[in-house]
Amino acid sequence: MKVVIAGAGFGGLRLARKLSNKRGIEVILLDKVNYHQFQPLLYQVATAGLDASNISFPLRKVFQKSRNVRIRLAELKEIVTAQHKIITSTEEIEYDILVLALGTETNFFDNQQLVDCSFPMKSTVEALQLRHKLLSNFEQALLVKDPAELQKLMNIVIVGGGPTGVELSGALAEMKRYVLPKDYPELDFSKMNIYLLEGSGKTLATMSEKSSEDSHRYLEKLGVTVHTNTTVNNYDGNNVQLKDGSIIPAKTVIWAAGVKGAVPNGLDKSLIVKGNRLIVDMQNKLKGFSNIYVIGDLAYMETPKYPHGHPQLASVAIQQGTTLAKNLVSLQRNETKFRDFDYYDKGTMATVGRNLAVVDIPRPKLHFRGFIAWFIWMSLHLMLILGVKNRFFVFSNWVYNYFTKDQSLRLVFPEFSKAKKKSEAMVNQINS
Amino acid sequence: MKVVIAGAGFGGLRLARKLSNKRGIEVILLDKVNYHQFQPLLYQVATAGLDASNISFPLRKVFQKSRNVRIRLAELKEIVTAQHKIITSTEEIEYDILVLALGTETNFFDNQQLVDCSFPMKSTVEALQLRHKLLSNFEQALLVKDPAELQKLMNIVIVGGGPTGVELSGALAEMKRYVLPKDYPELDFSKMNIYLLEGSGKTLATMSEKSSEDSHRYLEKLGVTVHTNTTVNNYDGNNVQLKDGSIIPAKTVIWAAGVKGAVPNGLDKSLIVKGNRLIVDMQNKLKGFSNIYVIGDLAYMETPKYPHGHPQLASVAIQQGTTLAKNLVSLQRNETKFRDFDYYDKGTMATVGRNLAVVDIPRPKLHFRGFIAWFIWMSLHLMLILGVKNRFFVFSNWVYNYFTKDQSLRLVFPEFSKAKKKSEAMVNQINS
Repeated sequence: MKVVIAGAGFGGLRLARKLSNKRGIEVILLDKVNYHQFQPLLYQVATAGLDASNISFPLRKVFQKSRNVRIRLAELKEIVTAQHKIITSTEEIEYDILVLALGTETNFFDNQQLVDCSFPMKSTVEALQLRHKLLSNFEQALLVKDPAELQKLMNIVIVGGGPTGVELSGALAEMKRYVLPKDYPELDFSKMNIYLLEGSGKTLATMSEKSSEDSHRYLEKLGVTVHTNTTVNNYDGNNVQLKDGSIIPAKTVIWAAGVKGAVPNGLDKSLIVKGNRLIVDMQNKLKGFSNIYVIGDLAYMETPKYPHGHPQLASVAIQQGTTLAKNLVSLQRNETKFRDFDYYDKGTMATVGRNLAVVDIPRPKLHFRGFIAWFIWMSLHLMLILGVKNRFFVFSNWVYNYFTKDQSLRLVFPEFSKAKKKSEAMVNQINS
Repeated sequence: MKVVIAGAGFGGLRLARKLSNKRGIEVILLDKVNYHQFQPLLYQVATAGLDASNISFPLRKVFQKSRNVRIRLAELKEIVTAQHKIITSTEEIEYDILVLALGTETNFFDNQQLVDCSFPMKSTVEALQLRHKLLSNFEQALLVKDPAELQKLMNIVIVGGGPTGVELSGALAEMKRYVLPKDYPELDFSKMNIYLLEGSGKTLATMSEKSSEDSHRYLEKLGVTVHTNTTVNNYDGNNVQLKDGSIIPAKTVIWAAGVKGAVPNGLDKSLIVKGNRLIVDMQNKLKGFSNIYVIGDLAYMETPKYPHGHPQLASVAIQQGTTLAKNLVSLQRNETKFRDFDYYDKGTMATVGRNLAVVDIPRPKLHFRGFIAWFIWMSLHLMLILGVKNRFFVFSNWVYNYFTKDQSLRLVFPEFSKAKKKSEAMVNQINS
């Protein structure tokens, strides 16, 4: 049985690992990059606290001891369901079972100016691009004479008060406090403003009321200007236009205001439901297909416990990978009973800064805040990171950063300039 | 007194550190990148044994406690000696004293095809580009059906048997032995060939006879095909043409066959001597100028001890930085006696692989080989790396790599594809 898994995020990787060395099953794992990205810590890569390699794990290393998992570094271009094959950027691959674990992509709500001018943060490369932008801005600020232009360089706007937006603005506020004034003694950092804009009435809206309140308080304590009930209409690279007509001048806007499912070509539009997700049954089987499954953020599954779908979290993706692996092994053995997916919610958490975090645990219903929550957050993330060596390096970096109050990886590589990427894309278009 | 230092390599950085917080001296340190690059370990970045950040140190961090050193992230475009000013990519800067510490760049001997098709390794970015190329080749090899095309992907040619060429081919041979077959079980690595081509009669020609012999033997032991007395005429991206008419098919050619001084615009051609270096007196003062100094690889100084100039080594640059700092402090104090530069040669060394290295010490004349030399090499390089944290991370990586025989940083970032860089350069030309 040939199982093709598209995407090596939390769900796809878990599934491939569970199917590794299972008799009678051949696995092809496809991803655009040759490493698994530990997304929860991307914001620390962006703020120079961690190295990209610390939270990226080469896929080939994961499967060095596997006899049946092959890796392909390619992009899924199209599914030809009638012929049971996929077309990738490099070849065509036939499948007996296809598993889509492609996750989500940043939702710019079809606003091309936002795509061009703002910075998303969904991948390691995007985190490095943001790091490049942040550091280059201050280098540029040293040369600018016009006060209005200087202010634009010193303002950072983060759109979206979910975990990404909260964690990133907290980390930026700590950079402003502990690192930047030492690095740029010529600049006046009392003029640096960090705005967090959230459309709903509260930060961390998907967490408990207490977590929302705590995170809001922590952010303001760190000096972040939090605006709830605030929607962005547009951004042209210089000014953020809010829905109420007001304007925030800023050269850096980070867009963490929403995601949408990364649906590949070749599937019927009727399968796509809210959040651009694909509708699946309780065994993650794509509606109307017997040999295509969808797991993780891209899957939309309604269950009695979750009548409006599951939250888009790593833990859901991982658990779906585990359940699907069991079902595929059963399928290969021609068994007829399959497990329904049943999400076990262990809790959610977010960190704002040093000793400042929030943790919600559902059963028993508990809320932690402050140092203890921060400690839980760190320990759990350390445990979840793939590989003893990465764990060691992340831990070492954290210990170092904690005691020195220093994010020390402030390297600017022009290769990660987003502006350059755009001109590149232009050339590629021209050439093709 | 305003001292402008162009270049933050070993020489420029040492000088700036020695002038830091010296009364009456204002320092501007200029570099194209915002970090100091520890060049001796670039080859380990290229072969995925170290992270770029491990051997790069943010300049602003070095000078956080300095009151008189300012950093500028810019390229030196031209010197206007008559007006005592330099023009950089971002601004014009006047100087009382100008110090050129720009080092060398790869010498392609005006062969544009070599520039386009081969990989130099003089900077962190170039090391990352090489890493990208090496890993992408194997991904491509998985898809190739034609045996001749496959062989081209599996061949690597290193041109130049100096320390860079020797250390890189040794590291590649170890990757071939320990890492690649596990990562790519579908490929046959008995077909992978590593060629080291050297124009002179021996490897490590600038070291002792014993070191040349030992390194040659070590390389062959590791499986590198060493061709001495072999000169490359051309390379078109597919075939290396040798002077004797023979051809080596290869998709990857690393050009480590020579360097030339990075002379900036605005200086008279008569100042440029062999190796494209600038002629200086025994106090590193540029010939004919009273306020321009040149230190490090770019300087050409004849002394009784070194009648044909000094070797282009980090230790020379560092010692010149130290001596010049003393002289500039004297100058600022209106003293009239200045020190001549006197190179103290502590020895040279190179490493080929695990437990395989060579060390030459001139006084007393000693030669070490094998494990002991390797141990000396490691200890000294660890000591020379800037920053306790980098030292700790390099050490941890080395311990990990030694015991696991694994270079674990095998991440492919398309941003470091050289092909892309070229199209970018095209666009920049178009736009400008």
